[in-house]
Amino acid sequence: MRGGIEKFFWGITLDAAHKEHKWDGTATENTVDCTVTTHKLSVRQVVLGADAKVGEANVIELEVLGYDDKKQKIPICVTKAGNSYVTNVDIFIEYQAATFHLTKGSGPVHISGMHQTKTNIIGEDDMDELAEEEGEDEEEEEEEVEELPPKKKTKK
Amino acid sequence: MRGGIEKFFWGITLDAAHKEHKWDGTATENTVDCTVTTHKLSVRQVVLGADAKVGEANVIELEVLGYDDKKQKIPICVTKAGNSYVTNVDIFIEYQAATFHLTKGSGPVHISGMHQTKTNIIGEDDMDELAEEEGEDEEEEEEEVEELPPKKKTKK
Amino acid sequence: MRGGIEKFFWGITLDAAHKEHKWDGTATENTVDCTVTTHKLSVRQVVLGADAKVGEANVIELEVLGYDDKKQKIPICVTKAGNSYVTNVDIFIEYQAATFHLTKGSGPVHISGMHQTKTNIIGEDDMDELAEEEGEDEEEEEEEVEELPPKKKTKK
Amino acid sequence: MRGGIEKFFWGITLDAAHKEHKWDGTATENTVDCTVTTHKLSVRQVVLGADAKVGEANVIELEVLGYDDKKQKIPICVTKAGNSYVTNVDIFIEYQAATFHLTKGSGPVHISGMHQTKTNIIGEDDMDELAEEEGEDEEEEEEEVEELPPKKKTKK
Amino acid sequence: MRGGIEKFFWGITLDAAHKEHKWDGTATENTVDCTVTTHKLSVRQVVLGADAKVGEANVIELEVLGYDDKKQKIPICVTKAGNSYVTNVDIFIEYQAATFHLTKGSGPVHISGMHQTKTNIIGEDDMDELAEEEGEDEEEEEEEVEELPPKKKTKK
Repeated sequence: MRGGIEKFFWGITLDAAHKEHKWDGTATENTVDCTVTTHKLSVRQVVLGADAKVGEANVIELEVLGYDDKKQKIPICVTKAGNSYVTNVDIFIEYQAATFHLTKGSGPVHISGMHQTKTNIIGEDDMDELAEEEGEDEEEEEEEVEELPPKKKTKK
Repeated sequence: MRGGIEKFFWGITLDAAHKEHKWDGTATENTVDCTVTTHKLSVRQVVLGADAKVGEANVIELEVLGYDDKKQKIPICVTKAGNSYVTNVDIFIEYQAATFHLTKGSGPVHISGMHQTKTNIIGEDDMDELAEEEGEDEEEEEEEVEELPPKKKTKK
Repeated sequence: MRGGIEKFFWGITLDAAHKEHKWDGTATENTVDCTVTTHKLSVRQVVLGADAKVGEANVIELEVLGYDDKKQKIPICVTKAGNSYVTNVDIFIEYQAATFHLTKGSGPVHISGMHQTKTNIIGEDDMDELAEEEGEDEEEEEEEVEELPPKKKTKK
Repeated sequence: MRGGIEKFFWGITLDAAHKEHKWDGTATENTVDCTVTTHKLSVRQVVLGADAKVGEANVIELEVLGYDDKKQKIPICVTKAGNSYVTNVDIFIEYQAATFHLTKGSGPVHISGMHQTKTNIIGEDDMDELAEEEGEDEEEEEEEVEELPPKKKTKK
Repeated sequence: MRGGIEKFFWGITLDAAHKEHKWDGTATENTVDCTVTTHKLSVRQVVLGADAKVGEANVIELEVLGYDDKKQKIPICVTKAGNSYVTNVDIFIEYQAATFHLTKGSGPVHISGMHQTKTNIIGEDDMDELAEEEGEDEEEEEEEVEELPPKKKTKK
């Protein structure tokens, strides 16, 4: 099997019974295929359930490491039945873990977006890096090219 | 005929009589032209009909496979007459089937966005792959380049 | 004169007296310069006039051919004075005609976005195509590269 | 000094005393450095002042040349205190002048976005054009590459 | 350690006790690694705290240098409890300092988006510039390539 980039719909639900969701975005190593998969998450909308309690504020906080490993824990959405049920957000997490917390309200809130993976065969990394060095500047806004070696964890 | 990339407006309507729409985004093989067409769908807005019942919540759920073939079925929009009629969403589906369900309310809801196709002549895949390996990193955020071989289905 | 890519602000107004606007996005051939210009339209916002009748719903439908020449005619915006006057939309039309209809309400509604043109000298197409074959995959999400030959119409 | 691309925050305020703002986006020639700077403007939000009169509609019109030098003058925003104070818009102007008019209301309205400049040393244009011819298709959606020679004005 | 591009979630909170946040986006030089890191900030949403005082307007102003070193100080968000709690914005700051001010209201307001860094080994700049000259035009909209030498400050 060759490596590659793939994109998936991603969605989770938080409510009174499930107030937390851990996104494990660290790299996964597959020792059978000898591949490493890195993960990016782009969160794009929060949909309040149609049956949410009227007037109750629902607060979603994101806990993640920012630049220089600074711990962040900040509301990324506050939503209340009675206003619009859909809130657009633009949150991007690459190569690391994060936790979504429903810190107020009982939801349900449905958070969705895109999960992008990139799978490389181990050992091809070096070649990739050479190629990346040449093409690096062509995509810097949208895309990391020559990333620092991500922390890996082993998957099965 | 040569292959290529094309973009189309895409739109569907769900209502009490049509509560479900299947998007068949798996690759289509054209045995006459010897081409394979892959499909991507970008959903961008949900427009509630002007005659929708006031106060009735309309819920649209997306059913699709996420990463690691995890089944997803989650609301991507809740919309009610009285609020804004247009809801912006950002949902992206590539290379696979998905189903849109109107699980609550009678609509009508008009869902629209962009349908992008890429047609390759069969057998040119290998050449493409070589080219892709070199250019891969230049587009990874926005675009898959070196995708895993998509599941094909035969069309006519 | 050399060919090139240009981007323009694009805007139209629909009201009781002008309920329809035809976008003629097919390629235009300029027989004097020996150039062909192709057209793309990205619609980004609908602004309801400040004097629109309060409580009257205005419905804008887009009529365009989708994938496989399937005829589409679907509401892309419903807007009413009293709510927000500006509605964000994301509609993309490339290489083809389309019609915007005000099917309900008297507006005025001001629809705007970006009109992008690409002008090529006729005969340079072949060279372009070669170049495109090499660079194709680098932009497929955002941009068509190796398009099927667009239907041309002659412009004096 | 070498040329280059730079991006800046851009913002203006319109009110009863300043009902008009001219954006002079034509190319500026610097005869000392022998450089030419071209300008692009991306307008992204309109913020109504917190002290705006309640219930008064504020209308912002954009006056600019569209495709084929067609004069455009069209509302790009209508905003009223009582609704949301921030309106998202997506307006793009490249290589030309434009005027923002507050045609109704007394504001204040704060319009902001991004101003992008590209500075080239005069005489390097030709080399650029060659490079552009090869890379042209790689960015056509997002970026002009091989633009028609912009009208220049001289800046001391 | 090699240089590279990295992206981080970025978020701050302003309230009655912290009415100002300075973003220090000038380049940081690391004399140990012999690297220079440049910074870009993309601000995407403002979330009003669920406990914000009802009816109180919160005004966030951005203070930053625009084109030609023109000082800008302009509201980028006005938000009030009772309306939507989340406001989408699109503000981009590259290679320079900026200050966010809560000029009215007591918040809290949670401002978030993406912080992108690019780290280069000092002395590799020249090679980068050569590479950039060739690839320059391929990314101009989304990305600066051949930037003017940023002002550096030294970070231990």
